[in-house]
Amino acid sequence: MPDSVEPRPMVLRTFRIRTSNHVGVLARVLAILAEHGASVGDLRTVFMGPLSRVRDIEVGFAEAAEIAAAARAIDATGEAHVLEIRDDVLDLHVGGKLVIRSRQPIASEADLRRVYTPGVGEVARRIAEEPGLADHYTMRASTVAIVSDGTAILGLGNLGPLAALPVLEGKAAILADLVEVNCVPLAAPAVQPGELVRAVATLSHGFGLVLLEDIAAPRCFEVEAGLRAAGVPVFHDDQHGTAAVVLAAVIGAAGLGGLDLARCRVGCIGLGAAGSAIARALMDYLGRPVFGADLDAGALERFRSAGGEPSDLAAIMATCDLVVATTGRPGLIAPEMVRPGQVILALSNPVPEIERDAAMAAGAALATDGRATNNMLAFPGLCRGGLDSGIRRFEPAVFRAAAEAIVASAPPGQLLPAPLDRAVHRRVARAVALAAAREGLATRELPPDYMLEGR
Amino acid sequence: MPDSVEPRPMVLRTFRIRTSNHVGVLARVLAILAEHGASVGDLRTVFMGPLSRVRDIEVGFAEAAEIAAAARAIDATGEAHVLEIRDDVLDLHVGGKLVIRSRQPIASEADLRRVYTPGVGEVARRIAEEPGLADHYTMRASTVAIVSDGTAILGLGNLGPLAALPVLEGKAAILADLVEVNCVPLAAPAVQPGELVRAVATLSHGFGLVLLEDIAAPRCFEVEAGLRAAGVPVFHDDQHGTAAVVLAAVIGAAGLGGLDLARCRVGCIGLGAAGSAIARALMDYLGRPVFGADLDAGALERFRSAGGEPSDLAAIMATCDLVVATTGRPGLIAPEMVRPGQVILALSNPVPEIERDAAMAAGAALATDGRATNNMLAFPGLCRGGLDSGIRRFEPAVFRAAAEAIVASAPPGQLLPAPLDRAVHRRVARAVALAAAREGLATRELPPDYMLEGR
Repeated sequence: MPDSVEPRPMVLRTFRIRTSNHVGVLARVLAILAEHGASVGDLRTVFMGPLSRVRDIEVGFAEAAEIAAAARAIDATGEAHVLEIRDDVLDLHVGGKLVIRSRQPIASEADLRRVYTPGVGEVARRIAEEPGLADHYTMRASTVAIVSDGTAILGLGNLGPLAALPVLEGKAAILADLVEVNCVPLAAPAVQPGELVRAVATLSHGFGLVLLEDIAAPRCFEVEAGLRAAGVPVFHDDQHGTAAVVLAAVIGAAGLGGLDLARCRVGCIGLGAAGSAIARALMDYLGRPVFGADLDAGALERFRSAGGEPSDLAAIMATCDLVVATTGRPGLIAPEMVRPGQVILALSNPVPEIERDAAMAAGAALATDGRATNNMLAFPGLCRGGLDSGIRRFEPAVFRAAAEAIVASAPPGQLLPAPLDRAVHRRVARAVALAAAREGLATRELPPDYMLEGR
Repeated sequence: MPDSVEPRPMVLRTFRIRTSNHVGVLARVLAILAEHGASVGDLRTVFMGPLSRVRDIEVGFAEAAEIAAAARAIDATGEAHVLEIRDDVLDLHVGGKLVIRSRQPIASEADLRRVYTPGVGEVARRIAEEPGLADHYTMRASTVAIVSDGTAILGLGNLGPLAALPVLEGKAAILADLVEVNCVPLAAPAVQPGELVRAVATLSHGFGLVLLEDIAAPRCFEVEAGLRAAGVPVFHDDQHGTAAVVLAAVIGAAGLGGLDLARCRVGCIGLGAAGSAIARALMDYLGRPVFGADLDAGALERFRSAGGEPSDLAAIMATCDLVVATTGRPGLIAPEMVRPGQVILALSNPVPEIERDAAMAAGAALATDGRATNNMLAFPGLCRGGLDSGIRRFEPAVFRAAAEAIVASAPPGQLLPAPLDRAVHRRVARAVALAAAREGLATRELPPDYMLEGR
């Protein structure tokens, strides 16, 4: 059960390339990069001369071995020359991606008396008398623990706790930057799920909620269930965050593809951690079973007990109007399996079950791949809104509210909004907090201006 | 076994007082505050008129009930009036004292590709291949977990995990501000020591070291020993940090009091968490047993097995040249027990075993109380130096090095340096890192400029 919705990591490099000032040279350089399986990001001109230009080109390689080969091929053209291959990404990670600082400068003995003893004593005493004050007088109400046991790091598998750290820090940096949430990375080795639950529950008191990340199925189900049972507000982003974004994409795709979600047949191909969460989110949203296929009998059984309708690949492709695939198997869906008018979300990374163009050529009304369903659209708002409402636990209605807020934020004609649009995250946070309040899951009253759009 | 060296919390308030412009009015106001058991901090003039002045006076009360009484007494003078009583300390704690932020802005898709996927994948893969790189590519090497089970919060006792949070945040704020260490508060309930050890060890992989704080004796001994056995670099500040500062004070006091430490008899009265750690640090430094007294048989037995010489209060006062008291019992040492020429460190807070003036009047060569031995002098440098050297575990030689660096930083004629002097912390950090390297406890090479004073 690969967690196939997770993008497979690439090796990013910055190529500094001098090209002669002839028409078409840059295009030829990009063509060479494409031949070596590289995708191109930003281009920045750093020198413009009468005879040549120097540009920094950000390139992502699927295979590290292709880097040198691509550079040799560029040099061999005679019109372009690779001056330098930089590793800006690694440089950026040196020393870590987060910083923890005091909100107050500590410059005098008076500062010290307030921040620490004796002043802090009264704060401690008040919280001891009324524990709810911890949300007011400490960082707890704006702080998330992000926990991984390193067993499913990106598409790379079980790499251990230290390798999980840069991923956790990256996600924490996003939370800090987009929604001003404090996020503490906690990395564990692959202990028994019950032991991870006990450790996290024991040390969770300073956190408003716990975000699980990169934990392999089926361990992730056990860890999440254990923490919920211990009363810890928790969600597993690879399941529920992803499912919320895919639900938004499904709602958006049905709209763009002219499907009536209230009547159409929906099928999920692949029922791993992400796929089964997507199927559950869809059933919750539609209020009826969806069809599901997986080669793993245990996954299919879990799907059945969650209310799903077990099926298989061929039947789903032949009968469903809307198909979500998360199998991790490139090219699993052959063009001749596509039904005319079908809406297909083939989400496996880096290569989808069917390429968008192939699906459209085969008659699909709308097709998309995993790049469109960036889970960055959901988790910042889920965390911010969960903290703002002091959420007790995450329920399907909360993820549904997040999905609806995401799809409502998409510009006209576009499937989903841009993940760096801060207004989207504020809107998702508000929808999450209000859903928590409506469902009786909130422990804190929202400020009166919470619903104001401009906030 | 009260952790008596820890200062007892006061209630801090800011009194805004208008005084008429007559000589002596301010003195009378301060006298009234003193009558109500208040100690006065900073005074700041906020208005200067022809007839009156308005000042903000920072006041610490031992008893909250005295606040209103003091204000009434000031108003009753007719020459001074309390305009406002502010609670600046509580205000400062609202929302917590720390902030966790991204070191990089995340403004573009390119930023995102570098900070998170796909860029972070290569970082994870490299660390998986060579785990030591986690110290280079993550925040691990500059990050400390500060752990409490809330069982001995300041002088207030077992108040639970939430009440521990503001104290942990305060200490983290100090570490951030003074030595740029990232510090994560982790608060647990009073579970079995073994369970706390397992939880912390499981989630410790992202931290360069673990600082234990406000854990009651004898639990603190078990937790520390368990984490050491699990290979986690750890120290308990209430024991070892305090002991390092007291050792520095003992060295300094012996010098100022004209005692030869190589020959004199040293006694420790009170062998709780702090007292027993002080006794062990003294024996390590002196290379011979010291005398110890405690009413608790278990504490005395632990002292004996650590190489100490059990004794009692009267014998120690009658025969020792230098006495360290950490009993939590105000006035335990009567003036007639003081030997002429004795050096006495009576460290219990807020009221020492014998007041400084009383001890000096009784013939002591030098006497001091707990205010002089601020443990802020040790833990920042211990953490910074421990992280810089990648310390494997803390040993007596490391604390000794910290103590020697502290006492070497004291200005001439002064017992100890000022705790907010950043140069002191840099010096302690260097001494700790070098001691770790010398003792074979370091896992990282120090940069070539590490010993430069100006660094």
